[in-house]
Amino acid sequence: MISRQKIAVIVAGGSGQRMGSATPKQFLSLAGKPVLYHTIAAFKAAYDDMHIILVVPEAHKTQIAHVLTAFDRPPSVTLVDGGETRFHSVRNGLQVIRGEAVVFVHDGVRPLVSPSLIRTCHEEALVQGSAVPAIELKDSIREVDDEGNMAADRSRFRIIQTPQTFLSELLIPAFEQPYEPLFTDEATVVERMGHDIHLVQGEEQNIKITRPADLAIAAAFLAGQ
Amino acid sequence: MISRQKIAVIVAGGSGQRMGSATPKQFLSLAGKPVLYHTIAAFKAAYDDMHIILVVPEAHKTQIAHVLTAFDRPPSVTLVDGGETRFHSVRNGLQVIRGEAVVFVHDGVRPLVSPSLIRTCHEEALVQGSAVPAIELKDSIREVDDEGNMAADRSRFRIIQTPQTFLSELLIPAFEQPYEPLFTDEATVVERMGHDIHLVQGEEQNIKITRPADLAIAAAFLAGQ
Repeated sequence: MISRQKIAVIVAGGSGQRMGSATPKQFLSLAGKPVLYHTIAAFKAAYDDMHIILVVPEAHKTQIAHVLTAFDRPPSVTLVDGGETRFHSVRNGLQVIRGEAVVFVHDGVRPLVSPSLIRTCHEEALVQGSAVPAIELKDSIREVDDEGNMAADRSRFRIIQTPQTFLSELLIPAFEQPYEPLFTDEATVVERMGHDIHLVQGEEQNIKITRPADLAIAAAFLAGQ
Repeated sequence: MISRQKIAVIVAGGSGQRMGSATPKQFLSLAGKPVLYHTIAAFKAAYDDMHIILVVPEAHKTQIAHVLTAFDRPPSVTLVDGGETRFHSVRNGLQVIRGEAVVFVHDGVRPLVSPSLIRTCHEEALVQGSAVPAIELKDSIREVDDEGNMAADRSRFRIIQTPQTFLSELLIPAFEQPYEPLFTDEATVVERMGHDIHLVQGEEQNIKITRPADLAIAAAFLAGQ
């Protein structure tokens, strides 16, 4: 039996507008390396035979080359153009996959994902079809609507992270559905096909870097390791 | 017309068990001062005539004295014993209030609350009866139950912070209700009396320090100011 391919679709298509910086956030420096370097390195550390599909805007390809040369042993990477929304970007990435794979869809700006979580996602997705990291809410929440707001039971909810991990035969057909604005993550797209989503325990430090403060928070987590 | 009193009930009753540290988290050092120092300082900076009710376990009273001596001009503080749960601690704090007040119930371990947010809560509570800071969720969420889990629309929910601010004539009677485990914050207690809760825009950096990493995150926020 030939083992399934392991493919990480890393979405690095952000425009960096919220960072107050001309440099898109995935290229900002974290502990001396670009954010995206750490992200790719985590997937390579999880599995030596991991293949990386990087979804990036055409305009950033020079910077991507710079990220890859920061590796002692540059990883095997396929570059794919980003799309209009996250859904379209991921779909572009999936279109270059041939054969059966375990596919990890991951935010380029989540550099602190651990190799251990990536391996857990792989093992669970092989058995369950999907593996999506989730963590509990620490704070009280309220539900809002046009009428006002009311207490909600936070224990009924989970915050969803990436890598959202699926067998390719579930994920790829799901992305042939027409786009809908509610498709903010891959689990929602796959669920729409009638498949159950299997949650695994995520990690507090697996944060998404979207604001300048997040970069300092990520550095604080790295320093604490 | 005599203006209403402004009273902050600061709950500093945590046992510090989650910090992996013998020192309760409100006494750990942040930028050279105890966490609780920053919390009290924010309320004093918001209003010169703010009165502070500190709810603390009997065992921590020596450390509290140390926090207060760190001020050039020690603030006016009433010490009250903590209770079995947050509800009981807040109720103990409310029992020493006489006359009409705007009451801010705040977590001792949220040291980065801004004086500006405290003033907004005051002004809105005067008009609306309540003012509870809330922020939007940045991440996708899923709802879980015994059957599995499903996508939930994050735009329908808000993460709740403190200071949860109320007119005393709403808050104090609400805390005469019998305790229920769902009373995890003050808004839930007041809402149970049939009052609407008024939300105001919270602050990303108004985090609750519960884990060691949170202290580094708070330091990163402070350094970025």
